[in-house]
Amino acid sequence: MSTPERFVIIGADAAGMSAASEARRVDPNLDIIAYDRGGFASYSQCGLPYLIGGLVEDHQRLIARTVDEFAQRGIAVRLGHEVLAVDPARKAIRVRELMNGTEFEQFYDRLLIATGASPARLPVTGLYLDGVFHLDIMEDAIAIQHYLRVHQPKHAVIVGGGYIGLEMAENLVRLGLKVHVVQRNRQLFPSVDVEIATSLSEELERHGVDLSLCDSVVEACEGHGGRVVDVHTSGGEVPADLVVAATGVRPAVALAAGAGIVLGATGAIAVDDHLRTNVPDIFAAGDCAEHWHRLLQRPTWLPLGTTANKQGRVAGRNAAGGDAVFAGIVGTAVTRVFDLQVARTGLTEREAAAAGLAAGATVLRSTDHAGYLPDAQELIVKLVAEAGSGRLLGGQVVGRAGADKRIDVLAAALYAGMTIEDLTRLDLAYAPPFNSVWDPLQAAATTLLRRDEFG
Amino acid sequence: MSTPERFVIIGADAAGMSAASEARRVDPNLDIIAYDRGGFASYSQCGLPYLIGGLVEDHQRLIARTVDEFAQRGIAVRLGHEVLAVDPARKAIRVRELMNGTEFEQFYDRLLIATGASPARLPVTGLYLDGVFHLDIMEDAIAIQHYLRVHQPKHAVIVGGGYIGLEMAENLVRLGLKVHVVQRNRQLFPSVDVEIATSLSEELERHGVDLSLCDSVVEACEGHGGRVVDVHTSGGEVPADLVVAATGVRPAVALAAGAGIVLGATGAIAVDDHLRTNVPDIFAAGDCAEHWHRLLQRPTWLPLGTTANKQGRVAGRNAAGGDAVFAGIVGTAVTRVFDLQVARTGLTEREAAAAGLAAGATVLRSTDHAGYLPDAQELIVKLVAEAGSGRLLGGQVVGRAGADKRIDVLAAALYAGMTIEDLTRLDLAYAPPFNSVWDPLQAAATTLLRRDEFG
Repeated sequence: MSTPERFVIIGADAAGMSAASEARRVDPNLDIIAYDRGGFASYSQCGLPYLIGGLVEDHQRLIARTVDEFAQRGIAVRLGHEVLAVDPARKAIRVRELMNGTEFEQFYDRLLIATGASPARLPVTGLYLDGVFHLDIMEDAIAIQHYLRVHQPKHAVIVGGGYIGLEMAENLVRLGLKVHVVQRNRQLFPSVDVEIATSLSEELERHGVDLSLCDSVVEACEGHGGRVVDVHTSGGEVPADLVVAATGVRPAVALAAGAGIVLGATGAIAVDDHLRTNVPDIFAAGDCAEHWHRLLQRPTWLPLGTTANKQGRVAGRNAAGGDAVFAGIVGTAVTRVFDLQVARTGLTEREAAAAGLAAGATVLRSTDHAGYLPDAQELIVKLVAEAGSGRLLGGQVVGRAGADKRIDVLAAALYAGMTIEDLTRLDLAYAPPFNSVWDPLQAAATTLLRRDEFG
Repeated sequence: MSTPERFVIIGADAAGMSAASEARRVDPNLDIIAYDRGGFASYSQCGLPYLIGGLVEDHQRLIARTVDEFAQRGIAVRLGHEVLAVDPARKAIRVRELMNGTEFEQFYDRLLIATGASPARLPVTGLYLDGVFHLDIMEDAIAIQHYLRVHQPKHAVIVGGGYIGLEMAENLVRLGLKVHVVQRNRQLFPSVDVEIATSLSEELERHGVDLSLCDSVVEACEGHGGRVVDVHTSGGEVPADLVVAATGVRPAVALAAGAGIVLGATGAIAVDDHLRTNVPDIFAAGDCAEHWHRLLQRPTWLPLGTTANKQGRVAGRNAAGGDAVFAGIVGTAVTRVFDLQVARTGLTEREAAAAGLAAGATVLRSTDHAGYLPDAQELIVKLVAEAGSGRLLGGQVVGRAGADKRIDVLAAALYAGMTIEDLTRLDLAYAPPFNSVWDPLQAAATTLLRRDEFG
């Protein structure tokens, strides 16, 4: 009997462990080993704000599958192990066991780089004061929980009004803190167009969150006795005994770059549709890799857990000798901000313009279900379509209910390359507790269709 | 200036008035007139159970557009006018004004038959007792409201466990009545497969609704002093001072058949993809017409408000000299039963078998959103796919939240002809308050994909 082949994975989170599980399904004899410098594998990173806010009782609940469970499937997970270098010529990686500093070499037949993304560091002094955090991995969330328990901070400043920033705002308000969000852009939540973002600003204000937009750049965190006490912004000083920097992430590509693996224009690792890098037998997946965009027909970088899981599964199948293709993304995302759901898919009007596409857009104010029922809630739908062809380019939805539903219908429509006329033809479910006889999506599509550029 | 052409519509509800509005958009000069024997035009028939249950304050709120509003757009609506006959040779219809019995002839250039559907009458004695109702049109709902006010019934029997039956059960329980549902079939709600229907039976029991399935056929309604007092079923006597017969509907085709218009195998009016009947210049749309089924690739009859609106729009455009095609249905429907949402699209496993399709199915029990958040609710998804090709054939979802969302994603997928593998590739929105990183739909599709017949 020949020695089984060995599949080595760097990074034991969404992409890495999806790859491990799928590889095991393809090849029961494959030797599979995953290294991660952190202390946790296979957990819901997206659940961290809710862990901090107390909605998730225990961090163990965020763990999808334990190291023991992986072991039972013949998948070795080595936590607390940092990979220092990849040597493609010798098909080996150099690993350091962080607990004791031991270093060793691990040979591979196939390698997956799933090193994820790291928080963008602010060019700011005082970042290392006690009470100033990023929220990236489980350890960050546990550290914030610990700080909250010990110091019981009252005033939080959140730097950045994107997904993590707004989710943290909600969860810190839930804990009783006074929250101030500072955002460099003119618009909160640049992931959607301004008509949609306005609802979010209003929702934050309704919950007592202070908001500094535009030129309020954080310049420094000031401390006293080693702990943060306030934040200097270009707009003035804001008292803060807790600061969460949520100013985005960058692909963690140092290891790949050091091994001669080619990065794409986005700065993430370039991969083909099988998630192969330019180096034989080395795959990349998840937040460190590029993501093929079905609408733009080019690689983009949109780090999300769903994509990491999908890419991991494709990479794992291919690494184990199977044949799978990553079908690409359409740019879908959703979050909840207090009682408001906000979701997007495809291209925003701004993104369509940036991509050089002639687009028309419409914003429809409707209700999530039949307006004659007592609990109907406002629902705002924005649709973007290509002038002439009528091809659906994207959609954004915000409301207290039903936004997630509409965005997933649009995500399916975008995957299939539908036009706005197709949207009006969809046989969507209707009953008064759920929508109007023409769903708001279809009403918006009809409005667009009747405009000259689509006529 | 030549005389404008005249477009005459029989039936002023969903299909008829959608046709009128669309025809007006196409041709500002068209003479448009709609006749209806009822007293209400353009209202939400699906809202009637909620009107009876008191969730809708006033029946006026169900009216989408008033006769005056239509008049302002140059669309004449004549209520209380029954059309007695269609004479295609002379391009005329015979109309009776019900208030005074006057009859007259109305000539048309183009005619739309949008006569809808009528309740199937039970072959039962005592149907004409006071307190025994069908629920079909606005007048029925108003009559039931009146009866409830005057007689304050305590025990309701609902005959039929379909959409209207279950919606009426919920709404009568809301009003404090003791409700008993009698269903001829072995299974409640035959619109879904048994694994899904089971949740509905449990939900009815949870709300104190009695349920007689199987051989409990209603044989007679017994009265006292002209009012119903009990219902004889094959399973015994059930006291009832209110009976609602909700045993389905039949296409109202007498007028069409009398004019030599060909009916299809379903018993509804046969139409082509432009919704033309076999008789020149006569169109049919809505509940009286057949509905092209995209999956079965043949005409079916599934009378629903959404389809009536879509067909009406197509027929109106064509009648006004435009060119539109009805894209067909995929069999989507949803309802709420107390706190439970139940939805279906495509073919059930039973329907797929009846259509001679080799299908595989899976039932997944999951949660509507991340299970580690405190308010996650059970969500049951059933997927049906064609063996070999993996083509998605249908889906059913039941749960306290998120069922409507999943069914609309599947409806879009069916419209586009997706496979279950496509489903797993969709870029659906993910955040813990909304789903798991693999949406239950995708988890179910993955389960199916791993089975031999799809491998």
